[in-house]
Amino acid sequence: MLVTLRHPSDADRVAAQLQALGLWTERLKSDSETRALLVRSDSAHVEPRAITAIDGVSAVWVPPTTHPKLDALAGAPVTVRGLTIGYGAPPVLISGPCSIESPEQIAESARAVRAAGGTILRGGAFKPRTSPYAFSGHGNPALGWMRDAADSAGLAVVTEVLSERDVDSVADYADMLQIGSRNMQAFGLLKAAGRAAKPVLLKRGMAATVEEWLLSAEHLLVAGASGVVFCERGLRSFDPSTRNLLDLGAVALLANVYRLPVVVDPSHAAGRRDLIQPLARAALGAGAHGLIVECHPDPAHAKSDGAQALDPRSLAGLADACHFASRENEGRS
Amino acid sequence: MLVTLRHPSDADRVAAQLQALGLWTERLKSDSETRALLVRSDSAHVEPRAITAIDGVSAVWVPPTTHPKLDALAGAPVTVRGLTIGYGAPPVLISGPCSIESPEQIAESARAVRAAGGTILRGGAFKPRTSPYAFSGHGNPALGWMRDAADSAGLAVVTEVLSERDVDSVADYADMLQIGSRNMQAFGLLKAAGRAAKPVLLKRGMAATVEEWLLSAEHLLVAGASGVVFCERGLRSFDPSTRNLLDLGAVALLANVYRLPVVVDPSHAAGRRDLIQPLARAALGAGAHGLIVECHPDPAHAKSDGAQALDPRSLAGLADACHFASRENEGRS
Amino acid sequence: MLVTLRHPSDADRVAAQLQALGLWTERLKSDSETRALLVRSDSAHVEPRAITAIDGVSAVWVPPTTHPKLDALAGAPVTVRGLTIGYGAPPVLISGPCSIESPEQIAESARAVRAAGGTILRGGAFKPRTSPYAFSGHGNPALGWMRDAADSAGLAVVTEVLSERDVDSVADYADMLQIGSRNMQAFGLLKAAGRAAKPVLLKRGMAATVEEWLLSAEHLLVAGASGVVFCERGLRSFDPSTRNLLDLGAVALLANVYRLPVVVDPSHAAGRRDLIQPLARAALGAGAHGLIVECHPDPAHAKSDGAQALDPRSLAGLADACHFASRENEGRS
Amino acid sequence: MLVTLRHPSDADRVAAQLQALGLWTERLKSDSETRALLVRSDSAHVEPRAITAIDGVSAVWVPPTTHPKLDALAGAPVTVRGLTIGYGAPPVLISGPCSIESPEQIAESARAVRAAGGTILRGGAFKPRTSPYAFSGHGNPALGWMRDAADSAGLAVVTEVLSERDVDSVADYADMLQIGSRNMQAFGLLKAAGRAAKPVLLKRGMAATVEEWLLSAEHLLVAGASGVVFCERGLRSFDPSTRNLLDLGAVALLANVYRLPVVVDPSHAAGRRDLIQPLARAALGAGAHGLIVECHPDPAHAKSDGAQALDPRSLAGLADACHFASRENEGRS
Repeated sequence: MLVTLRHPSDADRVAAQLQALGLWTERLKSDSETRALLVRSDSAHVEPRAITAIDGVSAVWVPPTTHPKLDALAGAPVTVRGLTIGYGAPPVLISGPCSIESPEQIAESARAVRAAGGTILRGGAFKPRTSPYAFSGHGNPALGWMRDAADSAGLAVVTEVLSERDVDSVADYADMLQIGSRNMQAFGLLKAAGRAAKPVLLKRGMAATVEEWLLSAEHLLVAGASGVVFCERGLRSFDPSTRNLLDLGAVALLANVYRLPVVVDPSHAAGRRDLIQPLARAALGAGAHGLIVECHPDPAHAKSDGAQALDPRSLAGLADACHFASRENEGRS
Repeated sequence: MLVTLRHPSDADRVAAQLQALGLWTERLKSDSETRALLVRSDSAHVEPRAITAIDGVSAVWVPPTTHPKLDALAGAPVTVRGLTIGYGAPPVLISGPCSIESPEQIAESARAVRAAGGTILRGGAFKPRTSPYAFSGHGNPALGWMRDAADSAGLAVVTEVLSERDVDSVADYADMLQIGSRNMQAFGLLKAAGRAAKPVLLKRGMAATVEEWLLSAEHLLVAGASGVVFCERGLRSFDPSTRNLLDLGAVALLANVYRLPVVVDPSHAAGRRDLIQPLARAALGAGAHGLIVECHPDPAHAKSDGAQALDPRSLAGLADACHFASRENEGRS
Repeated sequence: MLVTLRHPSDADRVAAQLQALGLWTERLKSDSETRALLVRSDSAHVEPRAITAIDGVSAVWVPPTTHPKLDALAGAPVTVRGLTIGYGAPPVLISGPCSIESPEQIAESARAVRAAGGTILRGGAFKPRTSPYAFSGHGNPALGWMRDAADSAGLAVVTEVLSERDVDSVADYADMLQIGSRNMQAFGLLKAAGRAAKPVLLKRGMAATVEEWLLSAEHLLVAGASGVVFCERGLRSFDPSTRNLLDLGAVALLANVYRLPVVVDPSHAAGRRDLIQPLARAALGAGAHGLIVECHPDPAHAKSDGAQALDPRSLAGLADACHFASRENEGRS
Repeated sequence: MLVTLRHPSDADRVAAQLQALGLWTERLKSDSETRALLVRSDSAHVEPRAITAIDGVSAVWVPPTTHPKLDALAGAPVTVRGLTIGYGAPPVLISGPCSIESPEQIAESARAVRAAGGTILRGGAFKPRTSPYAFSGHGNPALGWMRDAADSAGLAVVTEVLSERDVDSVADYADMLQIGSRNMQAFGLLKAAGRAAKPVLLKRGMAATVEEWLLSAEHLLVAGASGVVFCERGLRSFDPSTRNLLDLGAVALLANVYRLPVVVDPSHAAGRRDLIQPLARAALGAGAHGLIVECHPDPAHAKSDGAQALDPRSLAGLADACHFASRENEGRS
């Protein structure tokens, strides 16, 4: 955003008034006179009309929006099988195992999620794995196991789609499609997933800017998605003491300034089971509209990510600490 | 940490039991047999004796601690002019202007901090400035103004020391010395500051690992500091939408696992005034033992960082949202 | 890698001998005795047998390889339409426009590439675009234009595939498929691309570790790719003065230690046209087996990335500075 | 930089002409008309007068320079004891041990450096160490040993100063003072070092932007330094396969666009001895005006950083590969 000045001599006074609004500015000169103040992108969000009202301001020049469809959804929660997520709705708890391993394991997980006050079941039928030799999920059969488990427990279903060819079958079983962080800018997959015309849970890429994240959501909306729930799961970090670097500033920005639905995954962010509960509380403090947490009936025998999965009792403890049980039915319409 | 195995054939079973404890492991082989499991550093904190108790484990090999003095202080809060900060103590609110500009400005700030439930006054007499041409503080005279303002309002004082030559005068006036993020590994300054034998507020460097941060605290303790309060203020970020990337995972780690005193500076983390309150709530959710927030009686005329400073009313609103007023006297001994 | 000791008392001496080999070590203790030395991953590459030869070493424990198919290709160049790229082969110049805009534009580009000593034509028929509203390529028709242009100029063809549904048509026209940095871990696309049984140019993700990059290549090889040429194009950077951060350490590692084929894209790394030539020379100095450079017959009217494209004369100047013309036919078999 | 337009309708045409110059632009609108084009900071360097010459451009608005003293030195090499470093001078080789351990060790090192074609001896009398328990140098006595060794071998001397209190003694012995990366923004130390009125080797902080680096040099010049030689040694990396991430884009920018003296430290960048030579060649390819490389007469017994130090034979090999021997006397005036 650029603020042009009526007279170069107004620069100091206008800069002070912009500062009072929470705006950082840099001067632009021509013929050694300050003609304009460039507003830095780490400034508070201020409507242009509040700026043009300042005496001495000639005009406010803004870049055109890059995501008009998303802008039109600001302040509106996303609906997933009758459940609302986002601005104005109570936080939701999404939970389940990393991988769907058997009908029994996912059913037991679903009961634990329900008991903890969760409303959406997560679980991987198709798993993105860094190594081609790691267990990558039971695929289509697991989708059916998961749907049955969720229906029995009265939960909605979210699950990741990894390949364009699986979009139709995933969309048949899931209430919300998940795009993983490694696919946040896999535009072929985004288009295919959007065409399913369902809500999409869009995980942030491990080094994606907020602007890139918003634009990937715009890709989904243009292709036909009925809504986008953003999910922050931590950025690539240089510090081996935690696996990823949870960016709650971005969460606060989406929830409070953009008023877009955003949930947080503290399990992947930390990698460490002993940090999940404090990070869950932190996420809700920042304004997150929900949590997505890994749980497993028996973490010792989980086929993937067991070291970060919570057992049912720990999940219930987390939900208590975050007051989910008491909120359970508020968000149902 | 390395877990050696009695028999290579125990590898799967032992790995599962370690996974149940929240430990990620990688195999180390010799003669195509798995002889040991290397525990990744993003695993949960587990005492070695819980591991040696597992059947099939031969031994647990650990690296020697690198910060014995700091380890000895785990679980013990730091005392600043009779006020306790850290494990077991209620959160503290530290606030004040970026720069101390005049006796009146700092006095007015002190009253605002006190009114909001704050207990420590912050303010810069010596300011680290990226540019040599920017206002760098009023120096020694400002220290006296600050002391008077704090005494009148019944607050303790923390202020930054930038140069070895200023340590004595800063220590004469302040109850706690601050080392800024740009000086976190300026070892000459750390030694000089430690010799003042006072508590030190140690800001994390903008790309420092937690281990480096702890070792800089060890430098201070070896030199004589009476205690160290860690301060997270955000890491260098690639995303222009916020100024820094607040690492609440590190805060959760210090507060919950290491049980060391840690406070959070949401003002510098975000740069944006509209994100300070959500990040403050997030910090307390993660377990932070306090907040350090910039305020100014008249942000429009602040000589530095006005765009991120809160006015007295906004500071009071933040303190209310974080329940500081009600906690005010709990931490006083 | 872990080096276990015959006697704890050997620790200092063995550590010194490992240091002489270029290995950084950290001690692991049990019962306050040093039982083993853990070799840090930023150490020089040393064969285990050179370590077991040290007096006092009991054993060397190594993690199993994670990419056996790739390991088997170390030291072997990849063949693209009779042209060899990699260890032992002279560097190649790959060039062409960001987007294929018309039959004339790509034909003119191909002539410029050939004139500069290039051997492979690049150009986008399917373009990954951060915004859904940006020009995303002419698609299938452009593939034919490109093939004709390359055939007329005697060049091979590499072009990006963005969607699983386009793999077959791209493979019909291209000699090498390109996977873009945003898709480096889009495993659905990797599997589909690998099944085309052609060589693949695999760009590194903007925050991917070298290990993750190698594992994505392993995904391609497992799926059937005939070879993988790695391409470094810069990592996500916090510094706005360049667009990305070119990691020539990773290039040196692949070229000199792993002996895998690796090329460098200085155009995307810098974003700035005035840095392309120095970065091209730097890449070859680090051991890169080729360069991939954007050129356009008329950069002022390029539909994408014109600000970083070289015109034919600048491309020829770059090729001269890097001595490509004189090497042109060396690599042809 | 901002380019304002005579008529909003000129936007497309002017943007194309700016693109032809290597400039990326973004539109700024007012009343839905494009009034100006904002030039992104990752654009090529172009003089404003080349832009005002474009038809349809109304004016070019630029931010005032932040480092006028440094700007005045563009294109001028720095002189260190009669040796010139920088734009127009042949590259220099700076080498020596991490720590100065004894008169014999530094004398032997000096002979090796001289034999390899080096002209400046480096070595640490005061060592910054992450841990307070690590060897931190022999201090003042080591300065004398180093001066004698350099004088005998006919070399100049550069050594790090860590504390304000040591500036005078270091300046008595050294021809150039070194500021380490951890102190790049330790402004108290910068002021003290600048007052010594000598040339300063300024290492880049591990997450510093180029702009911050230039401003720290401006701090030194304002305080009185006779010149600044920049030194890139790698940025903080998330990838454990190398220790740091060498930013040769920044080197190319300083050497080719800003025309400021810049050298590269490939030893600390890689951490791995097997990557030093390729990174040294890469640095010279990017335009670096010199290299700073660790060597030690007996790396197995080095007190610090032995795993990355070259022995005299390897140093000679590196110097040969980089053609230093043949350039040795060219730079002497």
